[in-house]
Amino acid sequence: MKKRYLMAPGPVAVDPHVMSVMSEPLIHHRSPQFSSILTEVRKDLKYLYQTNNDCLIFASSGTGGMEASVANLLSPGDKAICVVAGKFGERWSELCQTYGVETVDINVEWGHAVDPAQVKEALDEHPDAKAVFIQAHETSTGVKHPVEELGRMIADKPDTVFVVDAISALGVYDMKVDEWNLDVVVTGSQKSLSLPPGLAVVSVSEKAWKMAEKAKAPRYYFNFLKERKALARETTAYTPAVSLIIGLGEVLKQFRQMGLENLFAHHRRLSGAVKAAVKAMGLEQFPKDPSEAITVICAPEGVNGQDVVKILREDYGITIAGGQAQLKGKIFRISHYGYLCEWDMIIAVAAVERALNELGHKVPLGSGVAACQEYFANN
Amino acid sequence: MKKRYLMAPGPVAVDPHVMSVMSEPLIHHRSPQFSSILTEVRKDLKYLYQTNNDCLIFASSGTGGMEASVANLLSPGDKAICVVAGKFGERWSELCQTYGVETVDINVEWGHAVDPAQVKEALDEHPDAKAVFIQAHETSTGVKHPVEELGRMIADKPDTVFVVDAISALGVYDMKVDEWNLDVVVTGSQKSLSLPPGLAVVSVSEKAWKMAEKAKAPRYYFNFLKERKALARETTAYTPAVSLIIGLGEVLKQFRQMGLENLFAHHRRLSGAVKAAVKAMGLEQFPKDPSEAITVICAPEGVNGQDVVKILREDYGITIAGGQAQLKGKIFRISHYGYLCEWDMIIAVAAVERALNELGHKVPLGSGVAACQEYFANN
Repeated sequence: MKKRYLMAPGPVAVDPHVMSVMSEPLIHHRSPQFSSILTEVRKDLKYLYQTNNDCLIFASSGTGGMEASVANLLSPGDKAICVVAGKFGERWSELCQTYGVETVDINVEWGHAVDPAQVKEALDEHPDAKAVFIQAHETSTGVKHPVEELGRMIADKPDTVFVVDAISALGVYDMKVDEWNLDVVVTGSQKSLSLPPGLAVVSVSEKAWKMAEKAKAPRYYFNFLKERKALARETTAYTPAVSLIIGLGEVLKQFRQMGLENLFAHHRRLSGAVKAAVKAMGLEQFPKDPSEAITVICAPEGVNGQDVVKILREDYGITIAGGQAQLKGKIFRISHYGYLCEWDMIIAVAAVERALNELGHKVPLGSGVAACQEYFANN
Repeated sequence: MKKRYLMAPGPVAVDPHVMSVMSEPLIHHRSPQFSSILTEVRKDLKYLYQTNNDCLIFASSGTGGMEASVANLLSPGDKAICVVAGKFGERWSELCQTYGVETVDINVEWGHAVDPAQVKEALDEHPDAKAVFIQAHETSTGVKHPVEELGRMIADKPDTVFVVDAISALGVYDMKVDEWNLDVVVTGSQKSLSLPPGLAVVSVSEKAWKMAEKAKAPRYYFNFLKERKALARETTAYTPAVSLIIGLGEVLKQFRQMGLENLFAHHRRLSGAVKAAVKAMGLEQFPKDPSEAITVICAPEGVNGQDVVKILREDYGITIAGGQAQLKGKIFRISHYGYLCEWDMIIAVAAVERALNELGHKVPLGSGVAACQEYFANN
């Protein structure tokens, strides 16, 4: 009778109704029936992205969408600025280097957001930079970068695009792609879209299309121009992940019914409650600039964060995430996106209370849960 | 009460039991539970591939697996021989060119298999060719290429690898990857693996690994070396398509229970019955060297093949495929792989009989079905 709970920052829990829709008999990807679903999904993606830009869908994980952005915008020898404030920032820099792009890394201490002044300085020093790459939310540290401010700053540069990995941010909190001038925005299915992994979505602005037309990096499967042509014919360049796209259609329909404001408020509420619990338990959040997407908690003195993750998984049936790379053992992370509700947050906090006590770090049982309850009752 | 049937050469019908397994609550990709599933799947893939080579799994469509093979084996300026006998042969050549590889195309008339002597000649003329690219089964024409003979021929060349797109062949008919020296073999989930699209699998021989270690084409998401490292840790380099891999495990378990011989005999039987029906209906097969994977039928004089496809889809709820590129309108294609049984073939043939009559091409009703019945009764 042990139930299993998935509260890691992706893959996330999927609504059983969405699962059941995805389980209906498969349809052919070159049929009028699928074309009409695809067209609807693309329209609803524009709603979620708050954009008029085309939204391209790839069968791949989010990293594929990131690679697509590098390979379709740049040419070997180009220069790009990468904000590196965690594992996923490093990925941008690695991707650029893979394609022979010269990178100017803005290294930010893990746990901190980039200061827009640093980006301005890099842009002033490197006016020939063709792109600025960043995470909206750096999942490895729980930090939210100021993409709105940066978007408005880069909008002034006619030959520089702003590329945002919003894999764990889009759909979690407000991101006005057009208003903030976010040229290319990547997301993945297994985060706030609350689907199994296997889809990447990339929005492309007019400024980015112009760059894509000139870019010379090799790409075939991840090809923006081919996908744009296919989009005009209501299809995809290569066989799409049919069942995931059908699931995406269902999720986006729910998002539309709910409204973006309510969707964001939901995540804010789950996040607020867990952050209140962290404080009440006498624990520390790791990020100085935390997001509503996840709560990243410092393992207290004498406790290995990986042990917290292990006890939750093995003894309580609850999957949260530990730290990656330099943060391994030092933190543990609880997600607020995915098919989750307030009771899930209470379960997560209750499990953390118990695990910490078991590991010798005394936390009054119920202290975190009480703070959650207070928060939920008042928000 | 109209039922829908999917008998196109992919995406194919999926066993509802497999669908239900894939619909179980999602598990985390970095959990011991998923690692053990992944390890089992990789073992069962070796059984299906009849190989001891590592089988790498990517979240992408089959084309991603093809691109991975080019980008991981070759460097710009390398030379490669491509057998081009249809739309997917063209894809190999385009992929090579995308990565700055000089291609020697062996152009074969559509509908014919390559003559091994042509490949031998190309190899003699271009001893510096690093790779030979081919389809095991060219889905656009229904042709089966002689990969066994070619594999044995290329095995003698220490610096040339043999790369086989077996997307619509592996699991359909016998393919002894190790015995025939097929260095890199690509497949996709939406063909004989009878899953929704979204997974590519690539097997890599020792000879190919040596080449991958030296190759300089850019690649990040599709990276053989990173996947090999991840494989040793029972994981994947990037977020895998968790639910599809769980489905793959279920399908491979069924294949194992059935045994490869019976699996191949099943496809041979479905194919034989439909090919007998084609003859009985007075129709012609398009390929001179047909495979057991699909039956490709020439639209008779005065009939547009696309109209046959349309009537089947719109009036009868049956999805088969038409022709692509130069074959558009000239052929229609019925699949024998996927979750299909003999009664499905009878339905397909019966529908074709009716559609042809409707389009003014007289076929005695029941003539094709009778031939199917005879074939099934005797085989």
